[in-house]
Amino acid sequence: MTKTSPILLTQVEVSELAKELGRSSLMGKTIDAHIKDLEEFMALPTDVPGHGEAGGYEHNRHKQNYTYMNLAGRLFQITRQQHYADFVIRLLEEYADKYLTFDFHVQKNTNPTGRLFHQILNEHCWLLYTSLAYSCVAEVMTDAQQQRIKNRIFEPMLDMFTVKYAHDFDRIHNHGIWAVAAVGICGLAIGKREYLDMAVYGIERNDSGGFLAQISQLFGPSGYYMEGPYYHRYAIRPTCLFAEILHRHMPEVDIYNYKGKVIGNTVNALLSTAYPNGEFPALNDASRTMSITDMGVQVAVSVYSKHYGVDDNLLGMAKIQDRVWMHSCGLVLSRALEQAEQKASVGMPFWPSVELNEGPEGTHGAQGFIRMQDKKGDVSQLVMNYGQHGMGHGNFDTLGISFFNRGQEVLREYGFARWVNVEPKFGGRYLDENKSYARQTIAHNAVTVDQKCQNNFDVARADSVHGTPHFFSVDSDVISGMSAFANQHYDGLSMQRSVFMLALDELESPLLIDLYRLAGEGDHQYDYSHQYEGQIIRTNFDYQSHQEVSTLGADNGYQHLWNIAGGKTSDTALVSWLQNNTYYTWLGTSSNDSGEVFFTRTGANDPSFNLRSEPAFIYRTHGKTSLLASILETHGYFNEEFEQSVNARGKVSSIKVLGHDDVSSVVQIFTANSLIILMVCNQLTTARSQHSVTFNKINYQWTGPYAVDITAIKQEK
Amino acid sequence: MTKTSPILLTQVEVSELAKELGRSSLMGKTIDAHIKDLEEFMALPTDVPGHGEAGGYEHNRHKQNYTYMNLAGRLFQITRQQHYADFVIRLLEEYADKYLTFDFHVQKNTNPTGRLFHQILNEHCWLLYTSLAYSCVAEVMTDAQQQRIKNRIFEPMLDMFTVKYAHDFDRIHNHGIWAVAAVGICGLAIGKREYLDMAVYGIERNDSGGFLAQISQLFGPSGYYMEGPYYHRYAIRPTCLFAEILHRHMPEVDIYNYKGKVIGNTVNALLSTAYPNGEFPALNDASRTMSITDMGVQVAVSVYSKHYGVDDNLLGMAKIQDRVWMHSCGLVLSRALEQAEQKASVGMPFWPSVELNEGPEGTHGAQGFIRMQDKKGDVSQLVMNYGQHGMGHGNFDTLGISFFNRGQEVLREYGFARWVNVEPKFGGRYLDENKSYARQTIAHNAVTVDQKCQNNFDVARADSVHGTPHFFSVDSDVISGMSAFANQHYDGLSMQRSVFMLALDELESPLLIDLYRLAGEGDHQYDYSHQYEGQIIRTNFDYQSHQEVSTLGADNGYQHLWNIAGGKTSDTALVSWLQNNTYYTWLGTSSNDSGEVFFTRTGANDPSFNLRSEPAFIYRTHGKTSLLASILETHGYFNEEFEQSVNARGKVSSIKVLGHDDVSSVVQIFTANSLIILMVCNQLTTARSQHSVTFNKINYQWTGPYAVDITAIKQEK
Repeated sequence: MTKTSPILLTQVEVSELAKELGRSSLMGKTIDAHIKDLEEFMALPTDVPGHGEAGGYEHNRHKQNYTYMNLAGRLFQITRQQHYADFVIRLLEEYADKYLTFDFHVQKNTNPTGRLFHQILNEHCWLLYTSLAYSCVAEVMTDAQQQRIKNRIFEPMLDMFTVKYAHDFDRIHNHGIWAVAAVGICGLAIGKREYLDMAVYGIERNDSGGFLAQISQLFGPSGYYMEGPYYHRYAIRPTCLFAEILHRHMPEVDIYNYKGKVIGNTVNALLSTAYPNGEFPALNDASRTMSITDMGVQVAVSVYSKHYGVDDNLLGMAKIQDRVWMHSCGLVLSRALEQAEQKASVGMPFWPSVELNEGPEGTHGAQGFIRMQDKKGDVSQLVMNYGQHGMGHGNFDTLGISFFNRGQEVLREYGFARWVNVEPKFGGRYLDENKSYARQTIAHNAVTVDQKCQNNFDVARADSVHGTPHFFSVDSDVISGMSAFANQHYDGLSMQRSVFMLALDELESPLLIDLYRLAGEGDHQYDYSHQYEGQIIRTNFDYQSHQEVSTLGADNGYQHLWNIAGGKTSDTALVSWLQNNTYYTWLGTSSNDSGEVFFTRTGANDPSFNLRSEPAFIYRTHGKTSLLASILETHGYFNEEFEQSVNARGKVSSIKVLGHDDVSSVVQIFTANSLIILMVCNQLTTARSQHSVTFNKINYQWTGPYAVDITAIKQEK
Repeated sequence: MTKTSPILLTQVEVSELAKELGRSSLMGKTIDAHIKDLEEFMALPTDVPGHGEAGGYEHNRHKQNYTYMNLAGRLFQITRQQHYADFVIRLLEEYADKYLTFDFHVQKNTNPTGRLFHQILNEHCWLLYTSLAYSCVAEVMTDAQQQRIKNRIFEPMLDMFTVKYAHDFDRIHNHGIWAVAAVGICGLAIGKREYLDMAVYGIERNDSGGFLAQISQLFGPSGYYMEGPYYHRYAIRPTCLFAEILHRHMPEVDIYNYKGKVIGNTVNALLSTAYPNGEFPALNDASRTMSITDMGVQVAVSVYSKHYGVDDNLLGMAKIQDRVWMHSCGLVLSRALEQAEQKASVGMPFWPSVELNEGPEGTHGAQGFIRMQDKKGDVSQLVMNYGQHGMGHGNFDTLGISFFNRGQEVLREYGFARWVNVEPKFGGRYLDENKSYARQTIAHNAVTVDQKCQNNFDVARADSVHGTPHFFSVDSDVISGMSAFANQHYDGLSMQRSVFMLALDELESPLLIDLYRLAGEGDHQYDYSHQYEGQIIRTNFDYQSHQEVSTLGADNGYQHLWNIAGGKTSDTALVSWLQNNTYYTWLGTSSNDSGEVFFTRTGANDPSFNLRSEPAFIYRTHGKTSLLASILETHGYFNEEFEQSVNARGKVSSIKVLGHDDVSSVVQIFTANSLIILMVCNQLTTARSQHSVTFNKINYQWTGPYAVDITAIKQEK
């Protein structure tokens, strides 16, 4: 027999992993759970099915087959149970019998098709995991068995990916990482190192393709991936797996230090986007429920821990994950958590605020993530998108925000219009409503101008522009804020959004303050929309609930919004709602005389019930250059089961625009006990610049890009 | 000092409870949690506020004051920490300063008002708990202190309840139990035993009032309380507390054996209504989230355990509750659980199926609860209401059903239109929409005839009629079923509903089968409505999604339903949806040619957003005497986070009415592997009666009230 060995584990590492069997450590629990899942799957009859629908049985079965082969290979090494190896070999032999008898799928979208799957992306995954499994069990196969597997599966696949689909192999894209990792890993596993070289340096061995080109070009200097965390976490798994392969088999690349530690940097960037509960904000068209418990992120956190070091936030994330990667990298993390918990209980992660720049040089805008902790330790997180359009997956929502606290997203991202793997829902693929609603500006927490989508929903135009950061200021315990411009997203209009979290002693949670300024020629309609969830509790204005309901508009997403109710507002408009156990009160105004609030609900023009039925409210104003300003207060507690309700009304009473021009904006907020004056620069400025403006005969002076002035007041009851 | 002692605990019991301090037993955890909560509350400044709104701060504060006094009294006994006693005494003295200075509230509804609360019900609660607290701390009060509390609080309250509001004291009602328990307990606590006598036997010392009359008349022989579990769990707490008082201080009543053990019987009835997750079905206008973790139910389970014995289901419930009553009764349960768990892990309760009769003699119909476990241990629960109208809280939904499995209610009860204690929502009181929508027939899983409400929403008429049980059959592992009539709920129409759960090997979960027959004169419109939750996945008929949406009707609840979409059906109509992780597929038909499905959503004519936005679908057919028949299949698994979807389509393919007349109904169901013929008698019959009917030249024969015939088939793909 040819001498073979696992390509991702040494025998010393295997024996260290074996020591965790039956222990209550994260690694012990992980191995235990994998054994349980694998045994359940192995109890089913073996099946290598033919072609099927995306999301259908056949698709899922091939996916399960590679998933469990991957586990079984390592579990064979760790436990030395022969039946795990037999399971892999039996399945591989069945694939060897059938693979070349399957023709290529019929092409349904722009992706090349495979013999097993409707797109080669899935076939890359199959090859990657199966090659790893093969490397773990080949030692108990005969030479003839090995040869047959190579000849009838692995080599034809390598040929398909690097010859038939060569044009796709070197494309810089998240799918491309899967392609190169699969080819490189397979080449190594079957002793054809030329494929590893090709995977690392590209087919042409120049900078235009291959893993090193991918990781050099896909991420901004901050490590942010422009398609957003949902696609980032998908690419992070082959990135980390292949990095670990190179670390072991191409030490000359020094992969974990390559290009200023790009691997560690991009893992860190991904993790730093997550909400406090571990879920990823659904930036760009993404699932709302993807979280750090994803297997790819488990691999990434484990790899990061071993090669870049463990800290409290990683330990906190490992606790949420409740698993590690079943590998010596995961063992480092598992042991670190065990040690830390002997000293003190490890809490939830509290990731620092961070601005993640975009573009090859970091000059194409950024994504801002500000976090602030309240007195009880709850973390509020504010996210603003002022970076690039996310390529094919981009939403038209530059300057859109989302806001999270008390375990829930409050100003919400709708996420994609897609039911992944739900076969009766268009095969689990993206639905038409993804374009007609979910990616439109009005579907986000942003301002839609004249009922049009940003960049007219023109992807090429959107790809050519980006936001411009103004300031990102997170050093104070009292106020954190960020501000950015988007001046190329609506013709003839420049936009600036400045968002803050303000900690006041009298308030339970940080107050969200939002100043949205639109400047340019002519009159416009501004729709300042707020995607909330829950039950409207009260308003401070009269509105009309419509007896017959029609859509709010005819296109650009408006055709999907039922116009349920609406009314004119004066001065400060108030909308308060209850989301699960927490009350939220929004107060909004603008520099114009006109104000109107619409209550909407998605579901119009949705003939297949593809959309979720969700509410929003839109503050509409008309005017020339305008400043829209609002606050969002988090307050109180409601528990239906225990029939408790506390502080259902909140403490902020008004917000008013005192003045704004091209130089600065000044707003005033009254709470029960405080008068707050917030002054913001509307031009790029430095931290030391002195500013002085006069609105309505009152002069305001401050230093730096913004300032807040808080005065205690005694209000009459 | 006058010799006093706690009226609910002996010193021996107190010392047994003290042994649990710091232990991980249920009692240990309970005491620990109570201490933590109490200490938090004691850290706030003392406050005895004046009048306020229902659900407002003042209301809640008085409630918190009595809740924490009640805890502090017992915790003083258990821990001997003087500051717990001091807390009670300080608060009582402040009440003594102020109580008589408060005037009676202004009356806002039909309930008499108190000095602290807007209805005396709350003042009864205050008196009950505060009297218990007083009995625990009086031993460290001076005579003068005791006298002042008695003179300025307790005696005026007793006088108010038994003189000023004497007319209310003897009323048989769930509020009445609070009244008598409060008065009796207070009388005992302050050494005025005449009030205890009055509380037990009524003011007139005859059968028309007092605790014994209450418990004799409020519940059916089955122990069921006609207003439903939500109100039952509210009444159960004073019932059990006062029973325990009588057990200790009036042993001659032999309360736990009184009237065929009515106390144990009614606790058992309450518990046997709960869904497998511990939540109570929202029968009559009730909260959807009330569960066995309610404090009153904790007291009830503890009392039951001590006086009637512990079994596996009670242990399972105690585990869900994760608490016991801080009393020697709770200690019995806590110790039983500790012992049981030393032997084996205690699982979720699997309460037996039960039919709970109603009315003083048990002849006023019943509530049916059928449970069946699937292969994985998940419990499906089917509930049908064929009993009495629930007095002032009654819904007009006789023959309505609800269905629960996989941890969620599938065919759902809307529950009340009320936001309890949410002050900005009409002071937390019942909303207008409770009558205009939530209690109407169309809001339930029932058939609405000619768009009218049962009994024309006439409470007096509804109170005068009830359902008639036909059969309740739960002895087979393959099929369980119940059938009942409601012949006085629509003029000139008799109705029979027969619902079954059928276990088939090929199906993951029991199949719900539903036959709804309406017989009488003339043509009618039948709206067979289904309150679901989640996302529509597919249908087997074309429907029109409306571009402009109006209400489905003008009154009887229809004015609150948006008519979102609808279409004609032929033969079997199919509606499939996804609720959280599970797919559900409904197939429906009728004996008529006409069939139409409407997709609706609540929220029309709801000017204050008082309703929740919830979907339903309604199968409409027109005809004379008709049989409506449907199945509901539970299948598959979806996990958005892990992007998994399995068996999204289900296995049942059709349902057909083969025939029906006044004697019997026969339907046929095809699944992938089976042909099912279900034969049901439509007249009262016995278990041994032989039946033979011929429909369409085919003869069907069976014995007993119903029969099912299952034939394996091989269907062509």
